[in-house]
Amino acid sequence: MAYDAIETPFEKTDWIVGGAATYVAYAASNFIKPINQVSIVGYDFAQEELDQLKERGVNLEGVEMKKDKKSFFWRGRYHLDMNTRDTLVTDLNAFLDFNPVIPDSYQGSEFVMLGNITPALQISVVKQLKTRPKLIAMDTMNFWMDNALDDLKQLLTMVDVLTVNDSEARQLSGESSLVKAARAIMKMGPRFLIIKKGEHGALLFHEDKVFVAPALPLEDVFDPTGAGDTFAGGFIGWLAHTRDISFENMKTAVIVGSAMASFCVEKFGPTRLKEITRPDIDARIRQFVDLVNFDIQLV
Amino acid sequence: MAYDAIETPFEKTDWIVGGAATYVAYAASNFIKPINQVSIVGYDFAQEELDQLKERGVNLEGVEMKKDKKSFFWRGRYHLDMNTRDTLVTDLNAFLDFNPVIPDSYQGSEFVMLGNITPALQISVVKQLKTRPKLIAMDTMNFWMDNALDDLKQLLTMVDVLTVNDSEARQLSGESSLVKAARAIMKMGPRFLIIKKGEHGALLFHEDKVFVAPALPLEDVFDPTGAGDTFAGGFIGWLAHTRDISFENMKTAVIVGSAMASFCVEKFGPTRLKEITRPDIDARIRQFVDLVNFDIQLV
Repeated sequence: MAYDAIETPFEKTDWIVGGAATYVAYAASNFIKPINQVSIVGYDFAQEELDQLKERGVNLEGVEMKKDKKSFFWRGRYHLDMNTRDTLVTDLNAFLDFNPVIPDSYQGSEFVMLGNITPALQISVVKQLKTRPKLIAMDTMNFWMDNALDDLKQLLTMVDVLTVNDSEARQLSGESSLVKAARAIMKMGPRFLIIKKGEHGALLFHEDKVFVAPALPLEDVFDPTGAGDTFAGGFIGWLAHTRDISFENMKTAVIVGSAMASFCVEKFGPTRLKEITRPDIDARIRQFVDLVNFDIQLV
Repeated sequence: MAYDAIETPFEKTDWIVGGAATYVAYAASNFIKPINQVSIVGYDFAQEELDQLKERGVNLEGVEMKKDKKSFFWRGRYHLDMNTRDTLVTDLNAFLDFNPVIPDSYQGSEFVMLGNITPALQISVVKQLKTRPKLIAMDTMNFWMDNALDDLKQLLTMVDVLTVNDSEARQLSGESSLVKAARAIMKMGPRFLIIKKGEHGALLFHEDKVFVAPALPLEDVFDPTGAGDTFAGGFIGWLAHTRDISFENMKTAVIVGSAMASFCVEKFGPTRLKEITRPDIDARIRQFVDLVNFDIQLV
């Protein structure tokens, strides 16, 4: 949980709530309550933001409050294509001291989403869980492949689902074909692999099966920040709600995640996620059905 | 109709039949006969290649044979990503004299595909048609946007379907959002727009509707040459076969085109297209159904 300053070619904001755990919680809380949040914030984290999360059924017992540090802060600027960005500032602040402790009341959580952070911390969370969750999903990024590959590889043996983008899948596997990359990565541990391709949608791999989810073609992308985390939140939220981890239901979960991400990019940070309701989400999911549905009469 | 020399990071060939019209004919002839081909070849064009096309129901009356010129020749080298390539040689040869003449026997053709070539020649073909075809589709490329934009814009008012890739759609419209680009391009004339995104699939736009077709995730892309033309051939072939130009059937045609393109890239040039049969194609189309099909029970 963090604060971001975001600049796009069109607008800018100097101070908006962000962080992977924030986006995951906002997206997942549409489908399942409670969300047992684990994170760390500094003295500058607004009580109002915490209250809004609580109102949505987010349990904050596992969120540490540092009295003497500021919250993690990131400042970034998007390029004209809205797909690439420069990081201008990363102030770790409270994150320097982060050592996640799982409260007793969180034990027994069946669906776990490990947001992108140091793999050693993700491992620590998994090791603290006394019963193996029904499903552990994780996100990561190229930075950890460059700087903590051994930990990352150990973590991969402990999880069920990995979400990465296409260039990260290629880097992790050393394969340029995504089909070969997926096969190599699934050998490293996760039974399911989701490759996120931004405006080109997402691929879900499992055993020898593959599912292609479209992205909603959007008139404008206002701010892509948090879209990947929002995807992850919609995905795990749907699975936790349905308690069905079949490949068939995973496909639906990928569509739900894609729908949530399509809302996220409509306004700065999680602003749009705070506004939408379940009927908005259901309508958006039905748009995805229309988007890919075709009649096949092989005449 | 041409000859190509193709180099990929893995293999090379110095002499293989190619050209937009060749790929379109091979793909479309799986669905409709005759194909009324219009093109030009030189003295070096192998009789065997012409015979193979004839056997597939391709009418060659509109193919001019130049006795004193070689066929159009292109040499290209693909980069490691297989998405970008360098053109090493372009010898126009017979194409310098190309002035397409539509034989009387071709009059009344209902489905016309204008392969990528000088827009002035594409206009000339349309003007020679005595009855307006049921559907005119056209392909073009960035080169003509840079060098023959006025002709291209005139042509756009005369056709029903335009196929371009995503960067060309952005260039033609001056819009970076593909949704806005599509709207702008449809105002230029074509009622239907297909934006080809290679390994990311294709988008079909019509009025305020959009359809997203996936690309088949492939283990290996052996040679992408001709994939776009093969897509166009499958698309127009399916429409000519079904004689149904509703948006619903256009969606199926885009899937058929995508399936044909997925075969094309499996071997050099049109080699794979010469091998496959209708049952192979139907099986491939069913793979596309599995690829995007998901169950939606909004619980």
